[in-house]
Amino acid sequence: MKESWSSFDASEPNFRPLVVIELAKGTKEETREWLTKRIVDKKANGGAQLLVKPLVTENGDQNIYLVGASPFRLLLGAEAVGLVKECNDNSMRTFTYSSRKTFKDFADDNHNFLTMAECQYIIKHELENLRAKDEKMIPGYPQAKLYPGKSIVRRLLTNDILVQIFPLHDREELKKLRHSWFGRVKIGYQPLDEIRCYFGETIALYFGFLEYFTFALIPMAVIGIPYYMFAWEDYDKYVMFAMFNLLWSTVILEVWKRFCAVMTYRWGTLLMKRQFEEPRPGFHGVLGINPVTGREEPVYSSIRRQIRIYLVSLPFVCLCLYVSFYVMMIYFDLEQWALDYHKENESSFSSLMLFVPSIIYAVVIEIMNRIYRYAAEFLTSWENHRLESSYQNHLILKVLVFNFLNCFASLFYIAFVLFDMKLLRQSLATLLVTSQILNQFVEAFLPYWLQKRHKKRMKKRMYSQKTDMDLSLVEQVNLEKEMGTYFGTFDDYLELFLQFGYVSLFSCVYPLAAIFAVLNNITEIYSDALKMCRVYKRPFAEPTASIGVWQLAFETMSVISVVTNCILIGMSPQVNALFPDSKMDLILTVALVEHMLLAMKFVMAFVIPDKPRDIRIKLARLEFESLEALKQQ
Amino acid sequence: MKESWSSFDASEPNFRPLVVIELAKGTKEETREWLTKRIVDKKANGGAQLLVKPLVTENGDQNIYLVGASPFRLLLGAEAVGLVKECNDNSMRTFTYSSRKTFKDFADDNHNFLTMAECQYIIKHELENLRAKDEKMIPGYPQAKLYPGKSIVRRLLTNDILVQIFPLHDREELKKLRHSWFGRVKIGYQPLDEIRCYFGETIALYFGFLEYFTFALIPMAVIGIPYYMFAWEDYDKYVMFAMFNLLWSTVILEVWKRFCAVMTYRWGTLLMKRQFEEPRPGFHGVLGINPVTGREEPVYSSIRRQIRIYLVSLPFVCLCLYVSFYVMMIYFDLEQWALDYHKENESSFSSLMLFVPSIIYAVVIEIMNRIYRYAAEFLTSWENHRLESSYQNHLILKVLVFNFLNCFASLFYIAFVLFDMKLLRQSLATLLVTSQILNQFVEAFLPYWLQKRHKKRMKKRMYSQKTDMDLSLVEQVNLEKEMGTYFGTFDDYLELFLQFGYVSLFSCVYPLAAIFAVLNNITEIYSDALKMCRVYKRPFAEPTASIGVWQLAFETMSVISVVTNCILIGMSPQVNALFPDSKMDLILTVALVEHMLLAMKFVMAFVIPDKPRDIRIKLARLEFESLEALKQQ
Repeated sequence: MKESWSSFDASEPNFRPLVVIELAKGTKEETREWLTKRIVDKKANGGAQLLVKPLVTENGDQNIYLVGASPFRLLLGAEAVGLVKECNDNSMRTFTYSSRKTFKDFADDNHNFLTMAECQYIIKHELENLRAKDEKMIPGYPQAKLYPGKSIVRRLLTNDILVQIFPLHDREELKKLRHSWFGRVKIGYQPLDEIRCYFGETIALYFGFLEYFTFALIPMAVIGIPYYMFAWEDYDKYVMFAMFNLLWSTVILEVWKRFCAVMTYRWGTLLMKRQFEEPRPGFHGVLGINPVTGREEPVYSSIRRQIRIYLVSLPFVCLCLYVSFYVMMIYFDLEQWALDYHKENESSFSSLMLFVPSIIYAVVIEIMNRIYRYAAEFLTSWENHRLESSYQNHLILKVLVFNFLNCFASLFYIAFVLFDMKLLRQSLATLLVTSQILNQFVEAFLPYWLQKRHKKRMKKRMYSQKTDMDLSLVEQVNLEKEMGTYFGTFDDYLELFLQFGYVSLFSCVYPLAAIFAVLNNITEIYSDALKMCRVYKRPFAEPTASIGVWQLAFETMSVISVVTNCILIGMSPQVNALFPDSKMDLILTVALVEHMLLAMKFVMAFVIPDKPRDIRIKLARLEFESLEALKQQ
Repeated sequence: MKESWSSFDASEPNFRPLVVIELAKGTKEETREWLTKRIVDKKANGGAQLLVKPLVTENGDQNIYLVGASPFRLLLGAEAVGLVKECNDNSMRTFTYSSRKTFKDFADDNHNFLTMAECQYIIKHELENLRAKDEKMIPGYPQAKLYPGKSIVRRLLTNDILVQIFPLHDREELKKLRHSWFGRVKIGYQPLDEIRCYFGETIALYFGFLEYFTFALIPMAVIGIPYYMFAWEDYDKYVMFAMFNLLWSTVILEVWKRFCAVMTYRWGTLLMKRQFEEPRPGFHGVLGINPVTGREEPVYSSIRRQIRIYLVSLPFVCLCLYVSFYVMMIYFDLEQWALDYHKENESSFSSLMLFVPSIIYAVVIEIMNRIYRYAAEFLTSWENHRLESSYQNHLILKVLVFNFLNCFASLFYIAFVLFDMKLLRQSLATLLVTSQILNQFVEAFLPYWLQKRHKKRMKKRMYSQKTDMDLSLVEQVNLEKEMGTYFGTFDDYLELFLQFGYVSLFSCVYPLAAIFAVLNNITEIYSDALKMCRVYKRPFAEPTASIGVWQLAFETMSVISVVTNCILIGMSPQVNALFPDSKMDLILTVALVEHMLLAMKFVMAFVIPDKPRDIRIKLARLEFESLEALKQQ
């Protein structure tokens, strides 16, 4: 194997493969040579100064490369990406190579100062920042145009020369993580710090939020039990429960921000400066000058994008909403038909039939959600957003609106048009349980099973043609490159968001929803963990300081739920009985209470500080120090 | 006079007095000597390295000092406070002495690079940052304790040894400013950039907001005129007008943020880093360690402050609100009495009497507002906030809540309890006009008249005892030190806030309010300008990037006005006639419309970017450059 080693940096005998680059089969020799040269080239020559080792696959094709870096290079990279680490005095500071001795656990021979996930993030960052110098095109591919400053990896990706880049799993670490995460049956917290070390902050925050949210739902669930068991229908108990829920949901969302700040401070991402965002790979346009960087890059007029958004995407979304509405009306016809059928031929079969429309509808909703998702991705991609973050925000908005209507329209219709609380309760239960079962199945167990089958087949193939290669590494790479790609936390958050809707929008009608949600989330933690560890390729770590736009989405949901719950309470016969003479007084009272609750929510959100006091003090101290340092200059 | 010159920096013959320090009469010699020595001492010795010149007053008392600084010192100070100036390439950058040549209009012999207001701000900053070294007390005043790092000026202020520090007017500049501001009768914009150069950003932003707000009210006023003239009472026109108003108020508040960003970018304050805030002068506590700076300073437990806020201030505010409510009820009794009187003895006198209760009430409201203001200031000061900003926020909150109730409670009562639209219109008009007249009188003309009388007397006294001193400067200082102190923009914004309430809360009942507001604001601009230029001492410039908490206050008011206007429209007989059968449908429709309007407001506030595109690009470019510079290191 020694001869296939990257000969560009012979001074590094301990090559540790971190990231895998898979080129398309049959990529030209000159392209491969050029690319590896650019990757290993010195920084001064415009290279990435990393280490590369080709991996010879069974059929002799050299289209897979392992990328690593020397410890020194990684430390410089950590400085370049602005990693924040803990110092000897327990404060968090931005890492610089020159001040490396002041950091906790740093030693020149300690190669564990950076976690493997951080090293992989650094390599990804360096690869993405590998830019064209004076090349006009990718050697060997005249159609793949380059211009000075264009990210080479992004061009290779958009031209399908580069199939994928992914970080390698660390089998030892993964085993340890799996063991402490879901290896044994135990009641307790997830090892969030270990998850963060292995998968990065974005994924650790998702699991942190999932756990937090589950715990936060428990009080709702516990309080809901007696209402269900004893079928309490008293006015005051009803109102008490709803009031508690509404204020509770505000409190948990505010307190989550504090939790999140504590965690991300410890992880260093709260202090990490946002890097300048490069255009996303799919972005295209005519070559122009970026007004921010002054660099040549594709430019796409903002007005044309606005036109695409408002004249194509918006009408399309409205059309989809209409279709979803139409399907809902069909569901109600079906429901009516089932009811009529049950009335005519009363039997155990017919009473089972009563549930069929709901189940069909739940399945149809899931299918529509998934189809719409593809359409939304296509449209948002076509809108040609320059930044990945703006793309994500537009996609999330589209998907959220549709999913919200798709999932909750029928419930709103039942509640506020049909006024049928019994049907509402039944539909809510069916929708909630069906969607939870479906989700868990589609998300985790199906891919897990597929993955397992695939692994078996691969293993068989492997052993049949034994070579003298470092089998376990080649095997590992070949296995992992075929694993599914984890596309980020979007779907997981969306699922939680909809669940939060089921729990909070109609909480005073169906208190049991919180219990189902809690139960689902406990298994969800395990199935998501399984999915992360077993089913998917290891994702690149993404430093992040919060759950971003989802915080806003959850807060919006909790505002909407104030409105729905107030109306539901106002419609309940018990409350109606309190205002026997005048419907008007009832409505006015409900409206008044609703406005007061909303005002209270806003005041509470305003009064509860977003960061705990000690984090605020630590941040202020850092800011003060940097101001003082500036003055000393 | 030469011998009374500060002999510590003889190399500076062109002493330009910028700031006046007035010590208490009879301040001990040793204290005065120590203070001047500390002020002129080298930075390295812990001094402020400024220039000081005593001013001998008519009775020989040496208690007034003029402070200046060499141009070089001022440039260093500009770097210390983090001033942002325009560069030769038209970008805005933080000034540093080493990069001074890259800034626009900079030349070593150009002493106008910094405006006089900036120089005075720098001197104030340097004086406030003059800190005790190893002194245990102010020399000559054993009761005035010092500890290392304590701001000397703040200790002198709290012990009444220092009477005041204020910046001198520049009579030439002031004359020019007066001329272009209100010297000639003209229709046009205010010279905001010149106001900013002379008075600083906080005051310029206030006048900018006043002007912007006045222009923004014009469309409302114009649309309101025909409603009033033709007494349109159609349902649709009503609704149209209210809808326009409600959305318009959101738009103007959002667009103001953009205006504000454009202005403060040009002025450099948008980019200016917030300095570390020192404790406000009135703050006291036991000596401890500040967790942020690690310095010794008074510490006051946050819990004790919370107890004071929630157990004393909050009940007191509630009590005041109750009193205000009680006074309101008395007003209604009076109103009833006047009505009865008018009915019994119908005459022109009795019909005049109809207005008397409203006028009395308006005056009483003003008086109560002012008394409450003192109480609020006392209480907030007693709450012992460490920071001036936190003190201001608590004060503003207290005053806003009380003023809101005091001014609008009667209108709410008339509208939503008495349902008397005619009385509402009449009360609104009386309250609005009375408070506007009262305000203009109390705020500007009364102080102006007092000031003028005082000036005359002073001048007489001056000329009677002619000396060979530089008369005009001594005269100027003696005049200015007796002028009133401008306590910031609080009252001015409060007035605008209440006016905004009168205009928007009941806009669909009394469209003419906008016209009154516009007329008032036009004269308000002139009377405020007069007040700033003629009545008050020159205030220190305060760099600021926005109108701060007032933005939130105005936005809250615009949300409340959606609710009030929807209810008013729902109560109008025209709308009631549309729902002849069912009051319930009416209320539900109104509630639906209200919620949709509120949702629309939030969406609009979310969609309109807070900064215009070109400012965002400029900010992004700066951020990008600083990231690149960091990488280059």
